[in-house]
Amino acid sequence: MNISGEQAVLDAHYMARALELAAKGRFSTHPNPRVGCVIVRDGQVVGEGWHVRAGEPHAEVHALRAAGANARGATAYVTLEPCSHHGRTPPCADALVDAGVARVVAAMQDPNPEVAGRGLQRLAQAGIVTHSGVMEQEARALNRGFLKRMEHGLPFVRVKLAMSLDGRTAMASGESQWITGPAARSAVQRLRAEASVVLTGADTVLADNARLTVRAEELGLDAEQTALAMSRPPLRVLIDGRLRVPLDAPFFKAGPALVATCAAVEEQYANGPECLIVPGADGQVDLRRLLSELAARGVNEVLVEAGPRLAGAFAQQGLVDEYQIFVAGKFLGSSARPLLDWPLAQMREAPQLKIIEMRAVGDDWRVIAMPLPAASV
Amino acid sequence: MNISGEQAVLDAHYMARALELAAKGRFSTHPNPRVGCVIVRDGQVVGEGWHVRAGEPHAEVHALRAAGANARGATAYVTLEPCSHHGRTPPCADALVDAGVARVVAAMQDPNPEVAGRGLQRLAQAGIVTHSGVMEQEARALNRGFLKRMEHGLPFVRVKLAMSLDGRTAMASGESQWITGPAARSAVQRLRAEASVVLTGADTVLADNARLTVRAEELGLDAEQTALAMSRPPLRVLIDGRLRVPLDAPFFKAGPALVATCAAVEEQYANGPECLIVPGADGQVDLRRLLSELAARGVNEVLVEAGPRLAGAFAQQGLVDEYQIFVAGKFLGSSARPLLDWPLAQMREAPQLKIIEMRAVGDDWRVIAMPLPAASV
Repeated sequence: MNISGEQAVLDAHYMARALELAAKGRFSTHPNPRVGCVIVRDGQVVGEGWHVRAGEPHAEVHALRAAGANARGATAYVTLEPCSHHGRTPPCADALVDAGVARVVAAMQDPNPEVAGRGLQRLAQAGIVTHSGVMEQEARALNRGFLKRMEHGLPFVRVKLAMSLDGRTAMASGESQWITGPAARSAVQRLRAEASVVLTGADTVLADNARLTVRAEELGLDAEQTALAMSRPPLRVLIDGRLRVPLDAPFFKAGPALVATCAAVEEQYANGPECLIVPGADGQVDLRRLLSELAARGVNEVLVEAGPRLAGAFAQQGLVDEYQIFVAGKFLGSSARPLLDWPLAQMREAPQLKIIEMRAVGDDWRVIAMPLPAASV
Repeated sequence: MNISGEQAVLDAHYMARALELAAKGRFSTHPNPRVGCVIVRDGQVVGEGWHVRAGEPHAEVHALRAAGANARGATAYVTLEPCSHHGRTPPCADALVDAGVARVVAAMQDPNPEVAGRGLQRLAQAGIVTHSGVMEQEARALNRGFLKRMEHGLPFVRVKLAMSLDGRTAMASGESQWITGPAARSAVQRLRAEASVVLTGADTVLADNARLTVRAEELGLDAEQTALAMSRPPLRVLIDGRLRVPLDAPFFKAGPALVATCAAVEEQYANGPECLIVPGADGQVDLRRLLSELAARGVNEVLVEAGPRLAGAFAQQGLVDEYQIFVAGKFLGSSARPLLDWPLAQMREAPQLKIIEMRAVGDDWRVIAMPLPAASV
């Protein structure tokens, strides 16, 4: 291996560590991205840091503080291009320059239009060697919501479903509780904690008395991560076009929530939760406008936990980025309810998905799948 | 580790090799079990063998021939207790005694009532040290069909299904071709080749012009295994209660077949395929009697490839030992056909399954699941 080959191996090694640090912010950084930083001098890690919470120091600042004078002449690995703008904290690019860092390796450019290459540019202008694109795919995966919001003005939408092995979500009668076991429920708790918004529909809230909260004891996380998750619970959003859910429902009693509805009837919710009026053409809530509004409020990731009708509407409108389907080892039979309310007549209309993984979660299994664009069918 | 601990490690090591050899007979030994044998002297493998085909020498005979005089004082590892009876070949127990083998390790006793411990007994009486139960679970897995037939008088029944991620097998119109891709189809070819019988229903044969044959070029096996598979294709069994499938259907033109039907109407099949009359109480073919009859003819493994109705009937009657479900990355939607025709009203009626594995097969995924007995629900 030549020297540049060896450097590439080392760069990937330290970036992997920076990504590991960044992931510690999984439950707490939003609306900011998850970012980690490692500072290396003479083959030694001299400082590490990760962004914990919006308004608090960025990953680079933590790492530079830990490194102190050792940052001089060192290489800084950051999972996202250092910022160049004055937000709630001063620009990290300046801090790296001031610390005398010799080289900065970024996993990816920051798509935030306030940065977008200017961070690396400022470093280069100060004589620092810069390099971007190391483990970019992994870095992008960690901040899919932030990236989608910056690049498309929409949050990343993950739809969680629970079904039997024959693709059914409930009996015809609606009976459905406890299809999956405790390990799957704990995984769903972590999905909720990761999300900026947990979104549901009136059917689910009325039928199951669902609250869609995060419960510390079910997260299955260590104390630090549990505390971070509980310090920043996701906003619960209820889609209820006709305001059918009464204010004394457990959903509303469980904490703050936002209601997306169609008509200007929120006077019946006087002193109740905030309402967002987003009527669609078909008398239903306009889901795309709702998502766009949520993105404008800084929402990176939305977890949809809804019945076949609402989940089917998101699917049909092409608004889903990822499905996480928990599969229980049972058959509910041919008269049970479908996975998604989405009638199709011909095979060529059938939406294509890429199944990313299937993995055991306790006695159940989790399938992760991504819709493929219609063009690739 | 003490000496007996080391011996256990070595025993498992050589038995694993014997199982690997046994598996080479996967496509050809039926109605006999798959058996492998390794002969070891002074830490050297001096002979190996596996049973290829009924009527041909057993694994032990091949291995003893290869070992020659080196078998004296050696240990023989066999994946199934050596036989003690005169079948189409002389008893292997006698051959091992004659060769002067000092120790025989078997993975499991032979459940064949003609053997059932008597093989090991004969060896012990001749002064040979015998040991049984090494890697028994793996050995049983390799011969599940043979064991089920010996122990229960029924074949092992594997149901192959192909579905979309939302659990559907075809559009409401019946449109269904090519749900899954070439790698999944090749895996199905290997399932057919392994089976003693491929069983289907009139619906499938009429709707899809299905032939259910094994095609050498789609097996994806090496030349030796392909030749073995093609030399012993599975018997194709058609369940056709009312003899709806005409004799000029591609199914019948593709080779010998057996028809299971209800009424004594086989005169319309004069000069046609063999018919088996197994009427059930409900005007349908009695599936359990059919399976029992197949077992009596030496059928170890049945692969069911049928539509939701017939597959659902096997499922409802508790006749399924394993499901292999090929899952395509698409949604067919809520009006498409179910996985199994099996209407259930209440969750407590829902049959439980243990999902054994989910694994990628090309662009599709394969789910292997086993029904759990109702008692464990």
